[in-house]
Amino acid sequence: MKPLGSLIPLAEAKALVDANIHPIEGTETAPISCLAHRVLAQDVRSGIDVPPYNRSAMDGYAVKAKDTFPAGKFQPVELDCVGVVNAGDVPVKKVRKGTCIQISTGAMIPEGADSVVMVENTERSAKKIQIFKSVPPGANVSKQGEDIKKDSVVLRAGEVLTPSKIGVLAALGFAEAKAYSMPRVSVIPTGNEVAEVGRKLRKGQVYDINSHTLSSILQENGCVPLLHPIVEDTAEALTSAFREESGSDMIVLSGGSSAGERDVLEGVVSKLGKVIFHGVQIKPGKPTVFGAIGMTPVFGMPGYPTACLTNGYVFLLPAARKMARLPPKSDTAHVVPIAKKYAADLGRHQFLTVKIKNGEAHVVFKESGTITSIANADGWIEIPPNVDIVEKGTMVEVHPF
Amino acid sequence: MKPLGSLIPLAEAKALVDANIHPIEGTETAPISCLAHRVLAQDVRSGIDVPPYNRSAMDGYAVKAKDTFPAGKFQPVELDCVGVVNAGDVPVKKVRKGTCIQISTGAMIPEGADSVVMVENTERSAKKIQIFKSVPPGANVSKQGEDIKKDSVVLRAGEVLTPSKIGVLAALGFAEAKAYSMPRVSVIPTGNEVAEVGRKLRKGQVYDINSHTLSSILQENGCVPLLHPIVEDTAEALTSAFREESGSDMIVLSGGSSAGERDVLEGVVSKLGKVIFHGVQIKPGKPTVFGAIGMTPVFGMPGYPTACLTNGYVFLLPAARKMARLPPKSDTAHVVPIAKKYAADLGRHQFLTVKIKNGEAHVVFKESGTITSIANADGWIEIPPNVDIVEKGTMVEVHPF
Repeated sequence: MKPLGSLIPLAEAKALVDANIHPIEGTETAPISCLAHRVLAQDVRSGIDVPPYNRSAMDGYAVKAKDTFPAGKFQPVELDCVGVVNAGDVPVKKVRKGTCIQISTGAMIPEGADSVVMVENTERSAKKIQIFKSVPPGANVSKQGEDIKKDSVVLRAGEVLTPSKIGVLAALGFAEAKAYSMPRVSVIPTGNEVAEVGRKLRKGQVYDINSHTLSSILQENGCVPLLHPIVEDTAEALTSAFREESGSDMIVLSGGSSAGERDVLEGVVSKLGKVIFHGVQIKPGKPTVFGAIGMTPVFGMPGYPTACLTNGYVFLLPAARKMARLPPKSDTAHVVPIAKKYAADLGRHQFLTVKIKNGEAHVVFKESGTITSIANADGWIEIPPNVDIVEKGTMVEVHPF
Repeated sequence: MKPLGSLIPLAEAKALVDANIHPIEGTETAPISCLAHRVLAQDVRSGIDVPPYNRSAMDGYAVKAKDTFPAGKFQPVELDCVGVVNAGDVPVKKVRKGTCIQISTGAMIPEGADSVVMVENTERSAKKIQIFKSVPPGANVSKQGEDIKKDSVVLRAGEVLTPSKIGVLAALGFAEAKAYSMPRVSVIPTGNEVAEVGRKLRKGQVYDINSHTLSSILQENGCVPLLHPIVEDTAEALTSAFREESGSDMIVLSGGSSAGERDVLEGVVSKLGKVIFHGVQIKPGKPTVFGAIGMTPVFGMPGYPTACLTNGYVFLLPAARKMARLPPKSDTAHVVPIAKKYAADLGRHQFLTVKIKNGEAHVVFKESGTITSIANADGWIEIPPNVDIVEKGTMVEVHPF
């Protein structure tokens, strides 16, 4: 057996991961209905003026503003209504002195008119329209190109396509756009005792949990998880799994990174590529491996489910987002007091799963092998390495799962 | 033309929407890899003990604790190592007095052993193991069922399947689970001037924006948007669109809810079902329609893109989440000072799109028809109806798009 070598501090491990993860270069073109939350890979230049024509911003009457100048609450101006323009129509009549044309929101302003009087400020009897409020020229008219000029750049490569940006693409008539590809991340469950879900356990077996939690975290953070079948903890099996997944943008193994005899991952990674670190001053998650095979980053996550889950949030999530060109996850931590005194381990960052009850954080972490510590938890807290006792009532940041 | 009738306050409109939206009842069974962020529709009872056997929590040696009691840093106890159990193995040998068996993390505890000594506290020479630290009975052993007892309920219907809960399902061996169906929401773009993206605009036409922004909001909030072709603003066309979409869980129309002659939506909804409100004291978004046809809620959103987008966040998003059984969106607003004095409209809730620059909120809203007011915005702020002037430096909550 080979115990772990020297452990590196959490901050150093995070920095090494960051330095070795590169934003994806590949792009693909897809319909805008498939691009929600994808990252734009092109500058978007408008091919049209928006609005594409002078249009009415209100339901009302298109007029010559000058005709309305004498109008007041008790001295209406009366104009002849000579036609109607609805949205989508091309106006055929002109507005001449003393006349107006009924117009609906979004419709083209007819020739001769320079403004629109809101319907609320008018009264109609047959073809006569009484106007009770004057308007200045340009009132309630959106000028062609006033919003977006043809050929101007409206969105830039790197922007995340939120619903509003999808709307901007649509406004410019884009049925599709070029986005950065979603990184394809192979998730390889390892371990001789690990069995696939949906089968009956044999004696000595447990179900594969970690590849499912890691896949969900990847999905949530802009990546496509590719689930590999369960691999035995042998150099041969791991080597051939790496070969099969060599086309991926990143490889994550769950299990196989502690100091047991069969934990051969470090050896295989250093043979096929390089090990960047093995062992971090954190609890749980100490035996985490990080390396690279060629340009492909490789994570070896600890086998214990809680350790693997917190590691997924601490190391994999930021890596996934950086590779996917998504901005770092915005902090959604709740700051609440801890419900009970907690004795921590000096010298190691500790991650504890907690449940929030009555506005307090209750530690549910028992050991990194327990599922209930996940099932009953709302999130996790971090205890810095220089803290040994967390007194009851200390405020802690709960990062939601 | 028929001007809008009396407007209702925003809070009343929100309450009416809430009262008329019912959580979806339909369920479906799907593989757990497809269930991230879905809502569980069954209580999950464990069919197994977890762990399914007494297992080692460490790499080390399975021992009788009593044998180790005399051990100390300078007085090691020496035991004969009689075998090896790796994870996944079924142990064949027993641990008898004076002996031990090498064991790896996760492996079954062999008969006769009651505890595990960590490898870090041992030294090996051939078959002899020196033990430098005593262990109490039960040390480093996870007992069968100590985490989850067979037949206990571990997850309950209504829980959102975050990565950690997906992990719990996997731990229990569930390859699939029953989730509530995602509400299917028909999005019907209306308007004679509205053209599909990807085509060339004819004179008087603008591109359909709103169905794309609304669809993205629905996608983000647990629903499946079903995009209907563009429908003309006539009672016949709207009626037949409603018929075609009558199998949906909710129907959202974009455009067609202002007071123009062709805005016939209210009439059609009241004929086929009932109008619950038409007109809200908000700006933009005043002409919003809400009703129901049979049990199907119907939203008529204003045609102007900014109005439709803010309405999407204010009305549609909470409705979508309630119907999908997702918890209300957690508040992610940033509180920052407003960069310039803003003159608001008394008597109406106002929604303004803003950009955050140098830690201040800059209003980018110009009019509800402008796309740049969306393209350049980071989110929106709300100004209550009793405020007429927002002084420079006033703190405002920016809700991100």
